[in-house]
Amino acid sequence: MTPEEFRKYGRQVVDWIADYWERVESLPVRSQAEPGEVRRRLPAHPPERGEPFEALLADMDRVVLPGVTHWQHPRFFAYYPANASGPAVLGDLLSSGLGVQGMLWATSPACTELEQLTLDWLAELLGLPGRFGSDGPGGGVIQDTASSSVLVALAAALQRASSGSVRADGAGGRYAVYASAEAHSAIDKAVVIAGLGERALRKVEVDPQTQAMDPRHLRDLVEADTAAGVRPVMVMATVGTTSTAAIDPVAAIGEICRERCIWLHIDAAYAGVAAVCPELRWVNNGAEYADSYATNPHKWLLTNFDCDAFWVADRADLVAALSILPEFLRNQASESGAVVDYRDWQIPLGRRFRALKLWAVIRWYGAEGLRAHIRRHVDLAAEFAALVHSDDRFELVAPHPLALVCFRLRTTGPADQDRANLGLMERLNAAGDLYLTHTKVGGRVALRMAIGGTRTERRHVTQAWQHICDAVATSA
Amino acid sequence: MTPEEFRKYGRQVVDWIADYWERVESLPVRSQAEPGEVRRRLPAHPPERGEPFEALLADMDRVVLPGVTHWQHPRFFAYYPANASGPAVLGDLLSSGLGVQGMLWATSPACTELEQLTLDWLAELLGLPGRFGSDGPGGGVIQDTASSSVLVALAAALQRASSGSVRADGAGGRYAVYASAEAHSAIDKAVVIAGLGERALRKVEVDPQTQAMDPRHLRDLVEADTAAGVRPVMVMATVGTTSTAAIDPVAAIGEICRERCIWLHIDAAYAGVAAVCPELRWVNNGAEYADSYATNPHKWLLTNFDCDAFWVADRADLVAALSILPEFLRNQASESGAVVDYRDWQIPLGRRFRALKLWAVIRWYGAEGLRAHIRRHVDLAAEFAALVHSDDRFELVAPHPLALVCFRLRTTGPADQDRANLGLMERLNAAGDLYLTHTKVGGRVALRMAIGGTRTERRHVTQAWQHICDAVATSA
Repeated sequence: MTPEEFRKYGRQVVDWIADYWERVESLPVRSQAEPGEVRRRLPAHPPERGEPFEALLADMDRVVLPGVTHWQHPRFFAYYPANASGPAVLGDLLSSGLGVQGMLWATSPACTELEQLTLDWLAELLGLPGRFGSDGPGGGVIQDTASSSVLVALAAALQRASSGSVRADGAGGRYAVYASAEAHSAIDKAVVIAGLGERALRKVEVDPQTQAMDPRHLRDLVEADTAAGVRPVMVMATVGTTSTAAIDPVAAIGEICRERCIWLHIDAAYAGVAAVCPELRWVNNGAEYADSYATNPHKWLLTNFDCDAFWVADRADLVAALSILPEFLRNQASESGAVVDYRDWQIPLGRRFRALKLWAVIRWYGAEGLRAHIRRHVDLAAEFAALVHSDDRFELVAPHPLALVCFRLRTTGPADQDRANLGLMERLNAAGDLYLTHTKVGGRVALRMAIGGTRTERRHVTQAWQHICDAVATSA
Repeated sequence: MTPEEFRKYGRQVVDWIADYWERVESLPVRSQAEPGEVRRRLPAHPPERGEPFEALLADMDRVVLPGVTHWQHPRFFAYYPANASGPAVLGDLLSSGLGVQGMLWATSPACTELEQLTLDWLAELLGLPGRFGSDGPGGGVIQDTASSSVLVALAAALQRASSGSVRADGAGGRYAVYASAEAHSAIDKAVVIAGLGERALRKVEVDPQTQAMDPRHLRDLVEADTAAGVRPVMVMATVGTTSTAAIDPVAAIGEICRERCIWLHIDAAYAGVAAVCPELRWVNNGAEYADSYATNPHKWLLTNFDCDAFWVADRADLVAALSILPEFLRNQASESGAVVDYRDWQIPLGRRFRALKLWAVIRWYGAEGLRAHIRRHVDLAAEFAALVHSDDRFELVAPHPLALVCFRLRTTGPADQDRANLGLMERLNAAGDLYLTHTKVGGRVALRMAIGGTRTERRHVTQAWQHICDAVATSA
């Protein structure tokens, strides 16, 4: 494709996206496609000759869109949001156009330095401890997801706890990792991939009211392990669980970690970014205890997936755990010690210039705009919770200090209640007017209303509530 | 950013990229920036108020470009190429605009089904075995890099070899992994991350002429391990090593793996895509023995990073190794068994709609265009090698059947020779006319001329040769 053709089709794609954003509200949120339907509408074999780009754009409308569940729909309230925004899309487009691979500082200095700067900016915006800054022994890096962050945090923690023997001889020792029973499944995956096995993971009990980790139970588990000759390696505290956005008591957990020299990783994937608002900065209380910390601008901070911001207080353990230096990567800049090579901070070797999209978001919105984005959703969640609270047919099932509201229909008995709530959700989702997902709280089904879409405004929340009430009334 | 603003700035960014591609040839290939220089030219703190997008574009020119080593420069011959192309950039732009997260089939059916289809197309284009097709027990998936592919392959191999006990109890058993001494450092990183430790990795000797794995030595190592009670888990064969593009004798290796029930992973990151040309399909000889196979369209097949294509012959081990099902991910489609959920095929949970860029590349170029792309570079490499061969000052140091030519200056003694070659490379790179990197072959420095850029044509290779000759003449 020549640069001239790129100009032409680039404009068409930009317009296609702008049109999509303008009309997405009119589409069913959840795809109505049956398994295999998308695939059946496309040729089974690749084309021998190249096709005009127009043919691909036509198939975007004809085949792809009907198979898309619209995460950018303003009435998408499922899972957690995956914010896309104009500046993020354009920042990522610039990255694609440059096509640099930033595995080493030397392979494109701007790719590394802009990432260091942007992560320093974000740490400042979130009020994170100064020890995460790149001007000391710590620093930040962009990972693809919080799952990868917890895995590299675990690698660093094992490196420190074993003084390098895990790296040399494997994870065959007796190690334990701790997270609350409500923590994300990423921690289960990490202990499996890291070769510790599921038996190494201790699920700490939660407070039944708040769903937050019980630090007394953590202490008991750590003491029992230590007495049994098992080495506690890492605790993962969660700031904003996937089920209910519960926030673990990080400072109390941090005290235990500090006493026992246990690596503390904070998974603030969802809630951490809320700290751009001074009145919500409390979500990161206790972060000063953390050895590592992750939050996802790709969820609720307007930056397209993938963009997980990960910081360490001391990068030495991380680099010691992951660095391997074959001849072909040797270079003067690395050997001078004056630069950081991000390949040693992550699982892959190669990396895109992802800082551009986060940089574009922070510059376009400014601190002011980011705060307004978070506040809008927090306010809407409070309003939605008030609607639920004022309606006797429903109950709130967890605290909702941020923008997730967990609620359910009241019914006569628990079995009925689970069935009724799942049925309500399925009717709503099938109709396509909004999209909700469920979880279990205290063993029973709850519906999750996760507000936070880039385009979600008051009217969308009001409409959603109306759809919910209508669906309940119709089935009654 | 409103859709209207996005149209306006989107056009500006598209033009900025087209302009960049038109003028990149006039820029020094390697960034001339000193450590810290990029960062010093930008504000130390994030802006309180949003800025106009024009300010960011101005900084792209003023600050970012001088800090970029231009991987898309037609005289970038370092490492391996990282092809960007118009259709790939636009496919990825469509993905950003849609902003879907394809962790489950249900979270956007098109994201999963188009990926299955596109990987089937690519397998067909490369002549890979039918068992990798998504219509049987196997299938393909896009990973970020070949490093992640080898790690998930190892997780699957451990699952199979241990009948699940590694997942439950950890990798404390006695396991061994094999790769040639010339294999990519990704295998070293994978055994470390997977908790096997460096001691589990056996580096198999290579043939000193071809740098390819010696299968007799592999057999000896496997037998010695087995006799010692160590379980051989996985062999990684390399098709196109990072140093010299050496190709391991996969069929001979595969026979050993089959006999001993060892998982065979093929890392064809660089060379695998060459098989789009029937005359180069031999690079994948022996792939029918493989349990898993990876190649990188993001290197030499016109598809922007990140796009590593990974196939397994039987996905059951992979899914058994990596699947974790929390309540919030339960859904009817997954439970019906009628769909594939790619979250279980990779380390992260979340995933972008990366198939769009590969689909756009295959449709725009067609099989014909992809073959022409590969052939052009293979021909140019042969021409470059002929120039080296015909000049007494230089010697070729490895076979060059694809588009990488390893060569060096002849000098009087080995110490001199290493110094002379590194000095020559540094002078060339510092001048900015071209960019080369080095490796060691048989313990001695060699320069790598990796041809394969999207925009690299005959004149660029001729110019590079002239610069090399001039640099040698000047220093003589």
